Amino acid sequence: MNRVLMSFPADASLAATIAPALQARLAPVGWRHFPDGESLVTLDDSLEGADVAILVSLRDPDPLALPLRFAAQSAREFGARSVGLIAPYLAYMRQDKRFHRGEAISAPLFARFLEESFDWLVTVDPHLHRFHRLQSLYSIPATHVSATPAVASWIANAIPDAMLIGPDSESEQWVARIAAQAGMPWQVLSKHRHGDYEVRVSLPDAAAATGRTPVLVDDIVSSGRTILETLAHLQRLALPPPVLVAIHPVFAGDAYAQLQAAGLARIVSTDTIAHPSNAIPLGAALAAAASTLMSSSTDSREDS
Amino acid sequence: MNRVLMSFPADASLAATIAPALQARLAPVGWRHFPDGESLVTLDDSLEGADVAILVSLRDPDPLALPLRFAAQSAREFGARSVGLIAPYLAYMRQDKRFHRGEAISAPLFARFLEESFDWLVTVDPHLHRFHRLQSLYSIPATHVSATPAVASWIANAIPDAMLIGPDSESEQWVARIAAQAGMPWQVLSKHRHGDYEVRVSLPDAAAATGRTPVLVDDIVSSGRTILETLAHLQRLALPPPVLVAIHPVFAGDAYAQLQAAGLARIVSTDTIAHPSNAIPLGAALAAAASTLMSSSTDSREDS
Repeated sequence: MNRVLMSFPADASLAATIAPALQARLAPVGWRHFPDGESLVTLDDSLEGADVAILVSLRDPDPLALPLRFAAQSAREFGARSVGLIAPYLAYMRQDKRFHRGEAISAPLFARFLEESFDWLVTVDPHLHRFHRLQSLYSIPATHVSATPAVASWIANAIPDAMLIGPDSESEQWVARIAAQAGMPWQVLSKHRHGDYEVRVSLPDAAAATGRTPVLVDDIVSSGRTILETLAHLQRLALPPPVLVAIHPVFAGDAYAQLQAAGLARIVSTDTIAHPSNAIPLGAALAAAASTLMSSSTDSREDS
Repeated sequence: MNRVLMSFPADASLAATIAPALQARLAPVGWRHFPDGESLVTLDDSLEGADVAILVSLRDPDPLALPLRFAAQSAREFGARSVGLIAPYLAYMRQDKRFHRGEAISAPLFARFLEESFDWLVTVDPHLHRFHRLQSLYSIPATHVSATPAVASWIANAIPDAMLIGPDSESEQWVARIAAQAGMPWQVLSKHRHGDYEVRVSLPDAAAATGRTPVLVDDIVSSGRTILETLAHLQRLALPPPVLVAIHPVFAGDAYAQLQAAGLARIVSTDTIAHPSNAIPLGAALAAAASTLMSSSTDSREDS
């Protein structure tokens, strides 16, 4: 096997956990800027016949788009026989329809952009809504790793008295799944409208939470607004300080600082986006998924 | 004629000068960001049968790349029959070979990226070096507008006693051309090496500059270092404070503030990049070049 894992600078620490499991040589992508904002991308050029995976988390995707394309296309120039993308956080999954006149539907446009450079794609729990499967949006082989087993196992070990709480009805399906795997009770906050403007959230069964540690679980924590509202409600119930588990720690602007100041016992996340809160490693799961696609992309080329 | 000129937010003021000359309806591109850094691009959707030109100056190209692609491809979805690009400052012209092992050669990779979205391209004085013609790099119809006539005419009117000065030998060819059109004398600084490390620049004929206003002319003023070195030398000659004319006012970091503090009488630039120093308008020239390509892209479609 001649496998190479290339990683963008911000993803170096996750790359170090993926490479051995993928049996791949680790080769960092060099990325610096010229004064007018152009990127200079530098990579390992000993790629003759190699199967390459490029690792980049697409939090803040726009400035990464061209460098990523330059890296992928240069890898082919240097002889790579396949080039795949490991994007633990995948961008542009939410603009999947025109919400207002004139809007660009960026989800499929971004998918086409990536497909021009990559033979396959691996991500973690993409935000699937109108597109129900990654494969409805992407025509290259695309796999998503579920963070559920790792999150469930982390909660079961670290917080044996947890009561899992989903912040809204959208989160129900997978909070239920994590709770089932962790063997924990769970609830989802319900929203009640009072009059025209006021919306109150409430825990359906506050009594069941007594004596347990509330664990808020959310897929993407971005502005943190949903979590802050939820916390305000939970504080009225006099429960112990909750733990927040974020699959994708986007934490836009000062969201992380606001959450740290909001009375949580702890904030943890998976390592799909490099962040001080990372506590739940997904490198092994990403390596397993990437390994399968790497082999099959090679097989199909060898068949043809 | 059904022509539409779409402009990115930073280019609105140049767009207002191009649109009437192009006989095009002006339609700004809306561009805002989501918390995770994704772009939301919005455009006029009444484009059935329209010939569209998108105006964007590619100073700081990376964050613009995806939004530009989204805009171009959405314009086609909305019925545009041709979509061209007016990029008064074109990016990625300098990385046209591998200077060190492993470097991505971004000039052709960026050209391929733009060609996927656009039918034609207009720019101003691109930095051509190893590629001698824009057409050797781009396979779509590509025209470059010369800033020479506008710069020459501005200098002839504003500084009738000018002595044009090119900061280095690379600038000779076009400083000479501007000087010829302006009917002005010119010189290019020469570099002399003293010992192993010291390099001194000097004006070949300092006597000829006496009684004239030195006008430094450079194509891209980026870090400003070359100009600052040149100024240090000219100050030793006790000439009047020089005027700086930049074709492309890139002004990276604090370059503009440094130049403003360096004893120049004035800093002016063309409007290829929106900047407070803009004084030499190129809208009419850009409109003329774009109009030709717009018509021919339409003709060839009507022929086929």
